Amino acid sequence: MPDSDNVHVLRPAARPTTGEATSPAQGSQAQGPQTQGSQTQGSQTLGPQPQGQQPTSPASGKATGEPVAGAETRPVGPSRTYEALARAQADFPQSELVHFGADKPLTLDAGVTLSPFQIAYQTYGKLNADKSNAILICHALSGDQHAANVHPVTGKTGWWETLIGPGKPIDTNRFFVIASNVLGGCLGTTGPSSINPKTGFPYGLDLPVVTIRDMVRAQAMLIDHLGIDRLLAVVGGSMGGMQVLQWAVSYPERVFAAMPMAAAARHSAQNIAFHEVGRQAVMADPDWRGGRYLLEGTSPRSGLAVARMAAHITYMSDSSLHRKFGRRLQDRDGRTFSFDADFQVESYLRHQGEAFVDRFDANSYLYVTRAMDYFDLAADYGGVLANAFKDTRTRFCLVSFTSDWLFPTADSRAVVHALNAAGASVSFAEIESDKGHDAFLLDEPELTAITRGFLDSAARAVGVA
Amino acid sequence: MPDSDNVHVLRPAARPTTGEATSPAQGSQAQGPQTQGSQTQGSQTLGPQPQGQQPTSPASGKATGEPVAGAETRPVGPSRTYEALARAQADFPQSELVHFGADKPLTLDAGVTLSPFQIAYQTYGKLNADKSNAILICHALSGDQHAANVHPVTGKTGWWETLIGPGKPIDTNRFFVIASNVLGGCLGTTGPSSINPKTGFPYGLDLPVVTIRDMVRAQAMLIDHLGIDRLLAVVGGSMGGMQVLQWAVSYPERVFAAMPMAAAARHSAQNIAFHEVGRQAVMADPDWRGGRYLLEGTSPRSGLAVARMAAHITYMSDSSLHRKFGRRLQDRDGRTFSFDADFQVESYLRHQGEAFVDRFDANSYLYVTRAMDYFDLAADYGGVLANAFKDTRTRFCLVSFTSDWLFPTADSRAVVHALNAAGASVSFAEIESDKGHDAFLLDEPELTAITRGFLDSAARAVGVA
Repeated sequence: MPDSDNVHVLRPAARPTTGEATSPAQGSQAQGPQTQGSQTQGSQTLGPQPQGQQPTSPASGKATGEPVAGAETRPVGPSRTYEALARAQADFPQSELVHFGADKPLTLDAGVTLSPFQIAYQTYGKLNADKSNAILICHALSGDQHAANVHPVTGKTGWWETLIGPGKPIDTNRFFVIASNVLGGCLGTTGPSSINPKTGFPYGLDLPVVTIRDMVRAQAMLIDHLGIDRLLAVVGGSMGGMQVLQWAVSYPERVFAAMPMAAAARHSAQNIAFHEVGRQAVMADPDWRGGRYLLEGTSPRSGLAVARMAAHITYMSDSSLHRKFGRRLQDRDGRTFSFDADFQVESYLRHQGEAFVDRFDANSYLYVTRAMDYFDLAADYGGVLANAFKDTRTRFCLVSFTSDWLFPTADSRAVVHALNAAGASVSFAEIESDKGHDAFLLDEPELTAITRGFLDSAARAVGVA
Repeated sequence: MPDSDNVHVLRPAARPTTGEATSPAQGSQAQGPQTQGSQTQGSQTLGPQPQGQQPTSPASGKATGEPVAGAETRPVGPSRTYEALARAQADFPQSELVHFGADKPLTLDAGVTLSPFQIAYQTYGKLNADKSNAILICHALSGDQHAANVHPVTGKTGWWETLIGPGKPIDTNRFFVIASNVLGGCLGTTGPSSINPKTGFPYGLDLPVVTIRDMVRAQAMLIDHLGIDRLLAVVGGSMGGMQVLQWAVSYPERVFAAMPMAAAARHSAQNIAFHEVGRQAVMADPDWRGGRYLLEGTSPRSGLAVARMAAHITYMSDSSLHRKFGRRLQDRDGRTFSFDADFQVESYLRHQGEAFVDRFDANSYLYVTRAMDYFDLAADYGGVLANAFKDTRTRFCLVSFTSDWLFPTADSRAVVHALNAAGASVSFAEIESDKGHDAFLLDEPELTAITRGFLDSAARAVGVA
């Protein structure tokens, strides 16, 4: 149902037409099946806004092709920060964009509806004639839709270019690959930094708390919009893997193959605990201002950086940290007997914190971590996970990593057992790696081979060339 | 050398003589071998102070027998906070106190000397005639000298009453047990919240950064002061275990038996990383004020609470968190779709953070974590740990816990291997427990039995009745 009356495909009004930093790295971004909407509909359909969209204004760094500025150069006055942080990507992302109007409300698990809302997404490759070659990529907590193109803010290559691209396991020469920013995110899909059309100001904490199931519901509306009935595969790691599992449970008939990596059917107490630390770090920052920092011209950089630092440790393994840094000192001959970053690992962590703050919204961090904490796939099925997969015809391939202590193999194995109990087609690989949870994002030859094999097999089964 | 001209044994001027909250829980606190100093020497020898010590003034909650007030009731004006936080325990602890004057400077690894300085300590049991029954207890990061008596601030029982007491493995009927607050701490031994006699104000970051070896050097001066040549045993867990190992290396002839639990010969990259997160959380709190919060009448409560929350997760295991909390909700029927503490584990962590802030100094947290990070016992021995233990006659017993991922068994085993290579007498037990790093503080029957057996054997060997 592309481009119906109430489903507008938008592009940012002043999206740069050239430039390394803004064009897809693969050069294969699909123009897709969708019709390009009028470029002026964006601001019209997004409701009242404090300022009109000014393509050439410094208000919208993106619009002039500039990445969002770092800490030192970011404007700090209320209006400038508002514009730079809230506007640049949250409402007018450098992505494909679909806007769902009043007749397409999103029903949330919180018991309310969200309307209007929008989804920002990227596509790679071409949808084939019978629309049987679509693969949906689900991103993790700190990821976004820029899975296989240069990131418009950071200028870095896509976060999953290890797997997605021409000739790669998720082969954009064969498959039509879709990656959308999650609900609650900050790269163009409606989230707390998006403009609330009822007020003209960013939602902040007025956005209802969303769940993994809500994210998947929104994605299903995107897939509807793209005219795709059944996805050849849904693939993702970590929180992306939670979405994959939720897809298979919510829309079993629409998922031919599902590949959740380094994931779990529910968030553990330890993981909830780590997320709570991160949220407390954000909310303890006085510049968070009860979530109203965009309006008040502040930015809880310190709190979000601390949150990211703590989280980052959990994405690695003890041995990978040891291998990468050990107790080596950072550009110095001996201990300084101070609280400087003497050790390389300290310097690295501080950098990770700073870099994250430059590209991620603090409130989105709260929303997305909360969605993960709330995730418990069996809860709606009497606590019996197998019942969630009853009669499924989806074929599954699960992957875990030996050194992943955030989503350990036992979590994946619990899903495999449930799938087996449900009589599902399931394969499972525990990959030997010392790289911890982040292994799913890295160049792991076994992961590459397994992904290729599983998707090739699925493609053959449905007759995709 | 008790009570020489420059070694004054002090008691707080107005120490309550009765009251549950201030008398040792065991009722067996030694009057020891030391002479009680004049009760008025305290303020005289501690150098210039903003206010004279007023035993009955609200400035010193301790002096009236009141515990330091919690968050809600703590005075927040500059002078009140200064008094409550900096004065109550940091300079006039409810402990035995030894003050080392100008002729007893402490040489620090940082290359400077600290003088004067003081050590706060507790003793339990009686030193025997030949001074052969002394056991030194070394505390962990967040511990203190109140190992086996009711804590003067929190009113809780001592942190190691599972092991220390009459008839317990560290039997105060047989042994003279000494527990001192570490250098850099905040319960009476000189630390960043102590008064800098040169300025009359708290040191803050002007205190040199200290190391585990510095802590042990200071303890050795305390042991000298108590007239003890050789300790029957030195026992401690976590950072306490680091001190035990350092004792055995620095003063091998003074340690008959050494029992490091859940420890390591060096701090790992992952552990440094977690500590750095904690320090960043503290220093990111605007109320930290560059470490001058005591002078400026603020308190970096939020930052320290976040630091403690993150650390607390690392003290437990995934399975103990799961067993204790799972995904159970806190006093509610369902998810609130908010950022409240829906889950019990969130509520628990928040409480842990708050409770810690009520009793611990933020700058001390920086100093003590730094000391642990700097710990690398082999570094002074060409990186060969066995060389650190060359020709040792100390008998060792190491303990680790299966679910401790902060100081995993491999860390203890590395020490055991080095001790074996050095030809030392060493036994080692990996105790099956799902309680994580904190297991050494808990009632673990195997730990109790091993501690009893090891200390009994040591006592028999030296003829302690």
